[in-house]
Amino acid sequence: MRFMWLFPLITLGAAPAIADNLRDSVSDLFTPLSADVVELSDNALTPEKISLGAKLFKDANLSDSGFFACASCHNPAKGGADGMDRAIGHTWQDGSSNTPSIFNSVFNTLPFWDQTDSTQTAREGLDLRAGIDPSAATDRMIARIRANPSYADLFRAAFPDAAEPISFETLSKALEAYQATLVTPAPFDAWLNGDDNALNAQQRAGLSVFVEVGCAACHSGINLGGDAYYPFGLVEKPDAEIAADQDESRYMVADSSADGRVFRASPLRNITLTAPYFHSGKVWDLKRAVTIMAESQLGAEVSEAEVDQIVEFLHAVEGERPVE
Amino acid sequence: MRFMWLFPLITLGAAPAIADNLRDSVSDLFTPLSADVVELSDNALTPEKISLGAKLFKDANLSDSGFFACASCHNPAKGGADGMDRAIGHTWQDGSSNTPSIFNSVFNTLPFWDQTDSTQTAREGLDLRAGIDPSAATDRMIARIRANPSYADLFRAAFPDAAEPISFETLSKALEAYQATLVTPAPFDAWLNGDDNALNAQQRAGLSVFVEVGCAACHSGINLGGDAYYPFGLVEKPDAEIAADQDESRYMVADSSADGRVFRASPLRNITLTAPYFHSGKVWDLKRAVTIMAESQLGAEVSEAEVDQIVEFLHAVEGERPVE
Repeated sequence: MRFMWLFPLITLGAAPAIADNLRDSVSDLFTPLSADVVELSDNALTPEKISLGAKLFKDANLSDSGFFACASCHNPAKGGADGMDRAIGHTWQDGSSNTPSIFNSVFNTLPFWDQTDSTQTAREGLDLRAGIDPSAATDRMIARIRANPSYADLFRAAFPDAAEPISFETLSKALEAYQATLVTPAPFDAWLNGDDNALNAQQRAGLSVFVEVGCAACHSGINLGGDAYYPFGLVEKPDAEIAADQDESRYMVADSSADGRVFRASPLRNITLTAPYFHSGKVWDLKRAVTIMAESQLGAEVSEAEVDQIVEFLHAVEGERPVE
Repeated sequence: MRFMWLFPLITLGAAPAIADNLRDSVSDLFTPLSADVVELSDNALTPEKISLGAKLFKDANLSDSGFFACASCHNPAKGGADGMDRAIGHTWQDGSSNTPSIFNSVFNTLPFWDQTDSTQTAREGLDLRAGIDPSAATDRMIARIRANPSYADLFRAAFPDAAEPISFETLSKALEAYQATLVTPAPFDAWLNGDDNALNAQQRAGLSVFVEVGCAACHSGINLGGDAYYPFGLVEKPDAEIAADQDESRYMVADSSADGRVFRASPLRNITLTAPYFHSGKVWDLKRAVTIMAESQLGAEVSEAEVDQIVEFLHAVEGERPVE
């Protein structure tokens, strides 16, 4: 019942005395992101593994059709997403949800919008599918990768101890290693680390509003989200087209009870680059998205000036594009 | 009027005395392919340019959607083509013709099935389109490539004298340089160069039939085709579905006179890997394709045994997959 801890945090978020020492007051809510290489359990990040993963990430042979690569939908030029309302699948099938960014995804506790599989972790989520349709047949994929003469040496260098260097397991680990390097430190991190000038006045004001109104109740931690599920419309349902929570009943979380379908609070890093918004991808304007969130999740009326400030703050969590 | 020289060659192809000294008798028809790097006019092949081209070849940002890379349709795992009947375009649009292989395409005099633009050369043909739809907006594409921090150094290293290293011109040249390395020397080349054992008896018999029947009239040179246009059904029209020459009148060559639409004789290297066949992509079986060619282009009755021999010979022009 992850989303139960929403309520104490809303109380915290509404606490006073934020403006006086803003950094101190938010230091428990956010964790700065560092450009240092992350450590993964059971998958040491070596340069060989990372560069192999980078090559695989762009290899269209990981999809069954051979037309789509990981990078087709998780495009570094589009903030690690695709700029579409909903994901594209095998043969350009229409997907059910907006594509999440690959950037900083190593820090998300939850990999997807909803709990399609309760055992799914970020690593198990690497099922190498083309968009929504898990059509990539693993055997065919591995056969195609093995048939590529340029991979033999690269896999052997990346996995010197593996009896069979090219396997689904090694391939997944190389992709996971590369994925872990796609992190985007932003001005907000520099500010959290003590650089007063990293945020301008408007952005600091936006951060205050963000916390005061209660956004940080769900959008906190290192990724400002990405670690718990909530109903969309906790206080007030948004328009049915935007909420889009009645279809796709197979995505229902069994124990979410009367609240119906729940969704992961979207990580907000680089949100300025990844329109359109929400799992439905129905909202293209970030100011409108912020307003809808305030009303439907928090029952809060926010002024236009406050929305502008929040959006300015969100620009400060837009990071540098990683080297591919 | 390129296809006029078809007729003298048919006469030559039907000449006797081929079986006695097969290699001597075909040496004027075919040119062995070498693994040596090709020289291009006005585009010196440097390792920096080639490796940059290899990276661009897999970059989906060269298509306007950001979903398709060059390698999506010219997939090295599929003989440099896509294994589809007709090309896929922007948003999975249905294309008008089968995708030609990128392998050895540097040696084709003609880049496409038909003369969509009379000024088009292989180099100008690098218009970086996703399938059939030239929807990639050049300015957006260049902006996305420039926005990728990993490209700045690579372009500068590949084009040290360019005032603006990242431009459509340099990008095209890098891709052309990489394309020129995608060559696939085959057993047939070793045999042409004097290695008697490179072809088995069945393959040598197939080569004899290939020349005697007249296939080599159009399928000759270094790529066994790729350098002239002909009507499909020179002697006898194939089934309308296979011929598919009435639609797409915009592809008509203005001076092809009463013969109607003409098509490039397909290069036959790696034809064993690139089913389905013909511009229409309607035939999946290579033996059937060979039979149709013999009947419709040459008016020749070939026995099943002879077709088997020709297909065995075609296996000897399947080359080694290039290192990507």
